[in-house]
Amino acid sequence: MKLAMIGLGKMGGNMATRLLRNNIQVVGFDHHTDTVKKLEKEAGLIPASSVQDAVNKLEGQKIVWLMLPAGEITEQQIADLIPMLNKGDIIIDGGNSNYKHSQRRGKLLAEHGIGFMDCGTSGGVWGLENGYCLMVGATKEVATVMEPILKALAPAADRGWAHVGPIGAGHFTKMIHNGIEYGMMQAMAEGLDLIKGKEEFNLDLAEITELWRHGSVVRSWLLDLTANALKGDQELSTVAPYVADSGEGRWTVMESVEQGVAAPVLTLALQARFRSQDATGYSYKLLSMMRNGFGGHHVKSTS
Amino acid sequence: MKLAMIGLGKMGGNMATRLLRNNIQVVGFDHHTDTVKKLEKEAGLIPASSVQDAVNKLEGQKIVWLMLPAGEITEQQIADLIPMLNKGDIIIDGGNSNYKHSQRRGKLLAEHGIGFMDCGTSGGVWGLENGYCLMVGATKEVATVMEPILKALAPAADRGWAHVGPIGAGHFTKMIHNGIEYGMMQAMAEGLDLIKGKEEFNLDLAEITELWRHGSVVRSWLLDLTANALKGDQELSTVAPYVADSGEGRWTVMESVEQGVAAPVLTLALQARFRSQDATGYSYKLLSMMRNGFGGHHVKSTS
Repeated sequence: MKLAMIGLGKMGGNMATRLLRNNIQVVGFDHHTDTVKKLEKEAGLIPASSVQDAVNKLEGQKIVWLMLPAGEITEQQIADLIPMLNKGDIIIDGGNSNYKHSQRRGKLLAEHGIGFMDCGTSGGVWGLENGYCLMVGATKEVATVMEPILKALAPAADRGWAHVGPIGAGHFTKMIHNGIEYGMMQAMAEGLDLIKGKEEFNLDLAEITELWRHGSVVRSWLLDLTANALKGDQELSTVAPYVADSGEGRWTVMESVEQGVAAPVLTLALQARFRSQDATGYSYKLLSMMRNGFGGHHVKSTS
Repeated sequence: MKLAMIGLGKMGGNMATRLLRNNIQVVGFDHHTDTVKKLEKEAGLIPASSVQDAVNKLEGQKIVWLMLPAGEITEQQIADLIPMLNKGDIIIDGGNSNYKHSQRRGKLLAEHGIGFMDCGTSGGVWGLENGYCLMVGATKEVATVMEPILKALAPAADRGWAHVGPIGAGHFTKMIHNGIEYGMMQAMAEGLDLIKGKEEFNLDLAEITELWRHGSVVRSWLLDLTANALKGDQELSTVAPYVADSGEGRWTVMESVEQGVAAPVLTLALQARFRSQDATGYSYKLLSMMRNGFGGHHVKSTS
């Protein structure tokens, strides 16, 4: 079996490597030619000098797997691929695209006779060794063709991948997965912050998170990672208190609004990230002024 | 080694059994005499007809482990035990007591020369087989005496138990653990609710939660339990939409207020449970009336 992987960043590069280790041939392209060369040398990637070159190096039913940033880059790449492919060929979007975009793209590609699969991919940089969790939206025909590849990427052939529904359902499921991830992370961070704040007990966060990994109700992969991160400088003194967010957290909250289904904790976990991103603190300035206005309370000045 | 276990409910009974399996003698008392008889027959418990009888059946340095409901029952039991014990004896509170109560009780017992250990105990009904996660607050002397017992209760001798700090620190750590648990559970429940609400995709919650167990970022013991629960009736049609809460979730939020450290998601996860417990919906009735008042909007009537 053979496919082309377009985008060889930390996700695409590791996935190509995992496929190659499972005896699936991978033609790879990335704008960073060094990355392509490195994967050729270290993992046996078939190098391509362009997307067209990658497509040319496939035979028969061509399969092109995209691991690109969601949004305009993925949009443009799919548009560019249409004239390069034939009826019956398949494009997979393994990135974090909005599921509505995937539904639209699936329809567009179907008009050209090209199959589409949206594959929500979880596992981060650990996926290379542990395998990826793959949430697949596709027609039955496309999912069947892709099965050997999904089995190779997953933690094992019989688990960690599933054809969950029609086109769009894969990215939808991944979107909610990430929304839940935001909430779980926020819950853990808040609790640990309260432990750190309890100066009277002088508790060791590294010891406690390691302890909780064994037999507790909160044991989880996120806890494993947190325990590992706290083994070093527990003060995290070099880390800025700024948390980025990507699309899926926002889209999950929008989904809650569209459905009219309450998701207060997922919403607040996202809002907490926005708060961390705001260096101006303008709302706090306003609040301080309001307190001063009605009660003459002291306004702390910028130092 | 030998100790008395007072309270043989789903936690205490299983813990006694696990200790007995690890060749630690356990004298057991519970108000339900059937439970005592059952554990005598099935696990080799030494039966006691009263707390005094249990204490009488110990020799040398007496160790009494309480697995009782937090609050008045634990308070009274500790008061009753004082005249039964000698200097150097040890009382362990393995229940979910408020850590401030444990600090106070530790001081009171110290005045009588009796040692105290607060042991936050996580693992639920699965602890018998998997072992318990034990968060211990005690003096170094008491913790050292208790080490063999902690090693027997934990998942393994070298993990899942820790002497995290002075008296009170064990129950404090368990309190925050449970606060985090509330937040993680709420995040997962909200996300799965949005998946269920996405009728267009007709997604299978049992399939998706099982899928996420392998390789995903949200994999966790709570997810394992959820996937298992969803294998049956996915509609959960016999389950009332009512979530109880015990003390630790509330105390975690109070701790946030006392410290002045923000914990919005842990707070909201608790508030969501309060909401589920309120069958009157009185605040919604008020909101509906307000909308009617200023805008003449339709008020839905009780049916």
